[in-house]
Amino acid sequence: MRFLECVPNISEGRDPDKITAIAQEVNKHPGVKLLDVSSDGDHHRTVITFIGEPLAVRDAALSLALKAIELIDMRRHQGGHPRMGAVDVVPFVPVQGVEMAEAVQIAHTFGKELGRKGISVFFYEEAATSSERKELPSIRKGEYEGLEEKLKDPRWKPDEGPDHFNPKSGATVVGARFPLVAYNVNLKVTDIAIAKEIAKKVRFKDGGFPQVRAMGVDLKEKGMVQVSMNLADYRATNIPQVYEFIRQEALKRSVEVEGSEIVGLVPLGVLEGIVQSYLKCPQFSIRQVIEQRILEFE
Amino acid sequence: MRFLECVPNISEGRDPDKITAIAQEVNKHPGVKLLDVSSDGDHHRTVITFIGEPLAVRDAALSLALKAIELIDMRRHQGGHPRMGAVDVVPFVPVQGVEMAEAVQIAHTFGKELGRKGISVFFYEEAATSSERKELPSIRKGEYEGLEEKLKDPRWKPDEGPDHFNPKSGATVVGARFPLVAYNVNLKVTDIAIAKEIAKKVRFKDGGFPQVRAMGVDLKEKGMVQVSMNLADYRATNIPQVYEFIRQEALKRSVEVEGSEIVGLVPLGVLEGIVQSYLKCPQFSIRQVIEQRILEFE
Repeated sequence: MRFLECVPNISEGRDPDKITAIAQEVNKHPGVKLLDVSSDGDHHRTVITFIGEPLAVRDAALSLALKAIELIDMRRHQGGHPRMGAVDVVPFVPVQGVEMAEAVQIAHTFGKELGRKGISVFFYEEAATSSERKELPSIRKGEYEGLEEKLKDPRWKPDEGPDHFNPKSGATVVGARFPLVAYNVNLKVTDIAIAKEIAKKVRFKDGGFPQVRAMGVDLKEKGMVQVSMNLADYRATNIPQVYEFIRQEALKRSVEVEGSEIVGLVPLGVLEGIVQSYLKCPQFSIRQVIEQRILEFE
Repeated sequence: MRFLECVPNISEGRDPDKITAIAQEVNKHPGVKLLDVSSDGDHHRTVITFIGEPLAVRDAALSLALKAIELIDMRRHQGGHPRMGAVDVVPFVPVQGVEMAEAVQIAHTFGKELGRKGISVFFYEEAATSSERKELPSIRKGEYEGLEEKLKDPRWKPDEGPDHFNPKSGATVVGARFPLVAYNVNLKVTDIAIAKEIAKKVRFKDGGFPQVRAMGVDLKEKGMVQVSMNLADYRATNIPQVYEFIRQEALKRSVEVEGSEIVGLVPLGVLEGIVQSYLKCPQFSIRQVIEQRILEFE
């Protein structure tokens, strides 16, 4: 059995009727399974996760995107999260029996179709057409509000679709990437400066671990602080490395780790490294997990 | 998708042609997947693992058993492992979307069929018909050589099949059980007494952890010793408990843990406890693993 995941981020996080209508498009495609819909009202943004056979997932993503374009008007959108379009980002993620090259191909054909529907499309991450377009923040810089000007710059000619500004829908960033692991470590202390200090040591940008983004977050209701992370490639840096590093750094400051949390869905491969490192068990492979064998079998 | 596992142990571990012929019976059943065939010449025994839809697995187990009964003659069998029949033990193990009650039912109907073919059958573990028959060692006590006498005892009337001795095939123990986890911890020391001492503290029989069997093993070629374990129900005692206990006990004796090994296949559920305990992450669930979601979806 072959599975591709798709995780569109759309610029609607408040109207449950619209969110449902958009997410439900996925269920019109046999063989595609809607796994999760997470909305944030402050961000005014919803993250939708679905999986299935690669071509079916592409078609489902297209239905979903067209419904979002119909229902969302960017001219009225204000939210806490950076965005440049109604369908802001559409990453395709290889999960089971799918190579990255195929995910890239799916991203490219999806982007071409979306372009034909009048949306300016930029390809990012593994689907990027140049190194300047590899990272989402550089494409999205200036956001929706700066997009009209940005499109006048020949360096920002879209990869697909019109090179003029679409005020209702903005632009969409489409790509293929490795699965992202959202992982947080909570510290038994109320001083946010400590979480920020440790986050800085952890994140790659400031000399920390490869493929890791991190920030300090105040968990006021819990009376704790948090080092909140994204591991963009768990093969480069996996959970045990950052957990143990944070534990040590906290200890140096006489702070205890309260616990940690894996947020949302992760591929089985993430657990392989956890077992190997804590049980001194370097030979352990996810091919020893019965469920993995069942999936290979299909 | 629903999956039942079956792990027959047959009394042939030396003749590759016979072993292949027996194992291949499984592949004649669509929807059943042969996962593993492990033979041990010293034990003169082979463990065969396959999975699939419950009824298909039962039919595959029956084909395999009949082929083993045809090709194996217990009158000529000598090996290091306790056994009482050509098809020695046939456990059915619920894996995905199958309850224990259904595995028990499958074991009972399989046993009835095997009985009709002239094999004396005893049900064990969850499929046992009385508490004295719950554990394999008590049923198998006396082995093949003592079976003729044992069958004369009314307390050992078989659950299915003839109550007279079948010299060519012996008897078969059939049951349903929770997945077994084979787990070993290696110690950087050559003194086997240390492994035996720690194994004794770990195993339930001598006051240790519930559902754990353990023994000390000399790994002469590696210049190490090993605490070799079976965790019969990982919900009662999981890997981190025994690993950390052994590590501490070794430390008390100034011995270091070289590493550990998970042998063969384990259900995904085993990894849940490992992640929860080492990452202080009690909320973590295997339902956060994408591969698990895919299986639930089918």
